[in-house]
Amino acid sequence: MITFVQVLDFIGTFAFAISGIRLASAKRFDWFGAYVVGFVTAIGGGTMRDVLLDVTPVWMTDPMYLLCTAFSLFWVIAFSKYLIHLNNTFFIFDTIGLALFTVVGFEKAITLGHPFWVAIIMGSMTGAAGGMLRDVFINEVPLIFRKEIYAMACVIGGLSYWICMLMELEAYQCQIICGVVVFLARTLSVKYNICLPVLKGE
Amino acid sequence: MITFVQVLDFIGTFAFAISGIRLASAKRFDWFGAYVVGFVTAIGGGTMRDVLLDVTPVWMTDPMYLLCTAFSLFWVIAFSKYLIHLNNTFFIFDTIGLALFTVVGFEKAITLGHPFWVAIIMGSMTGAAGGMLRDVFINEVPLIFRKEIYAMACVIGGLSYWICMLMELEAYQCQIICGVVVFLARTLSVKYNICLPVLKGE
Amino acid sequence: MITFVQVLDFIGTFAFAISGIRLASAKRFDWFGAYVVGFVTAIGGGTMRDVLLDVTPVWMTDPMYLLCTAFSLFWVIAFSKYLIHLNNTFFIFDTIGLALFTVVGFEKAITLGHPFWVAIIMGSMTGAAGGMLRDVFINEVPLIFRKEIYAMACVIGGLSYWICMLMELEAYQCQIICGVVVFLARTLSVKYNICLPVLKGE
Repeated sequence: MITFVQVLDFIGTFAFAISGIRLASAKRFDWFGAYVVGFVTAIGGGTMRDVLLDVTPVWMTDPMYLLCTAFSLFWVIAFSKYLIHLNNTFFIFDTIGLALFTVVGFEKAITLGHPFWVAIIMGSMTGAAGGMLRDVFINEVPLIFRKEIYAMACVIGGLSYWICMLMELEAYQCQIICGVVVFLARTLSVKYNICLPVLKGE
Repeated sequence: MITFVQVLDFIGTFAFAISGIRLASAKRFDWFGAYVVGFVTAIGGGTMRDVLLDVTPVWMTDPMYLLCTAFSLFWVIAFSKYLIHLNNTFFIFDTIGLALFTVVGFEKAITLGHPFWVAIIMGSMTGAAGGMLRDVFINEVPLIFRKEIYAMACVIGGLSYWICMLMELEAYQCQIICGVVVFLARTLSVKYNICLPVLKGE
Repeated sequence: MITFVQVLDFIGTFAFAISGIRLASAKRFDWFGAYVVGFVTAIGGGTMRDVLLDVTPVWMTDPMYLLCTAFSLFWVIAFSKYLIHLNNTFFIFDTIGLALFTVVGFEKAITLGHPFWVAIIMGSMTGAAGGMLRDVFINEVPLIFRKEIYAMACVIGGLSYWICMLMELEAYQCQIICGVVVFLARTLSVKYNICLPVLKGE
């Protein structure tokens, strides 16, 4: 039986893979290269987390991530003309993925007995590091360091997870609150154009 | 006693290190930088594989890879004038390395009990990820995502290894067939200029 | 009680984080991006080492590194106007960090039972790989491959550690000699403008 979290996980993976594949297509990668970039965007953050936590990366035990990336590639090839009209939909999907991946990463680190600050980093890494690896691969300065609130939303979500834990809420309550906070932090910051200050160069 | 596989392994490492050192020299790296890029090109794919499989990377237990890279650097410094005439030889060496590394990576993942799709990824990673890391280091868009069949040859080889396993062939038969398939897929695709389709940008 | 080594570790982390944050500010990263680049510069080398040695990265058990990076960011924001006058101070701090991180990395690998050549690589990686990751993140060709003696100083320091071990000196004597050699190799090479030869392009 497929659970609600699995559906969200599929949506998040799909959105992340699509974002990698579209940027790869802008650089004129071939199908294989686009598949690899899409896959790395989707699973790169979780893989970095699992290597640091010394557990087996999720995509090595469940072929869903490979299949979902293949589905995303097919989708981009088949519907490339219409994708630009779907930018708002992708933004929602991408933010769902960001929120879910943050919750998953935070929870995994806490379950393995790590302190809260490690869990916040692991949550943010799961959410945001795939996009960073994508940008390194396509040879661009990572967007997450320059644009609107993105990885910062994961940090805020992780902090709220921790506060919920201090208040001794149930695990599922912590998770929902964390996910909602990430989603809201990202969508509101984009809607009201809230940015972090830029460091002044010397 | 040195086995046939060790000779092939040395040839593959030599060819991969040479490719890294030559690209580093085009970017005017110093000797040390060129050595590092050559070493990473040679052992980067295997190291990523071993970190994901949670085993000790091969170059940490056998100094051959360090010595072979030093030999490659000496070679490039001493014979740089003549290297351009040897491009066909290097292509053969590089393709032998690609084939052998794919076989080694696939076999290691299967031996550790991973499913076939993980083994195909590990074989391809062992063969092709070193070149990708090399391109990230010298700040270029990775070639394997844009040029002729390269990592794709590893995937095809891995698939044939798997098919041979399903047909219950002996291990050494699977390995020879996989290696030959990688070698042929790469050389034929270059000879007849076969490419994967490029993703159309929006 | 805070030991002398912890003070040096703090100084090294501070200097490395500052170097990452300053380069990020030159690329107009926001505060969060600058923090991430500073943190990766400070702990990236040690993290690569710990992943390869299969132990838990130090920053996951001690929040000092996160706090020290936050302090560095505050420092750059508050005193950005005056930093350029402190370049000589930063050079000293950075070289102390390089020397200390090399000693720590070498010693960790030897303690875990690895051979001397692995220890030399781990020492050099701890000292120099953070700066390399920094340059990949900000999308520049890594400086350590092109400029004056930097990672090479770590290799020379590692070699002297090994020679001291062969001469059966005490551990603390090996460490002091290794650190001093790294420090001197770096400062003298900068003072007298000693470089490694550049590989001639074809």
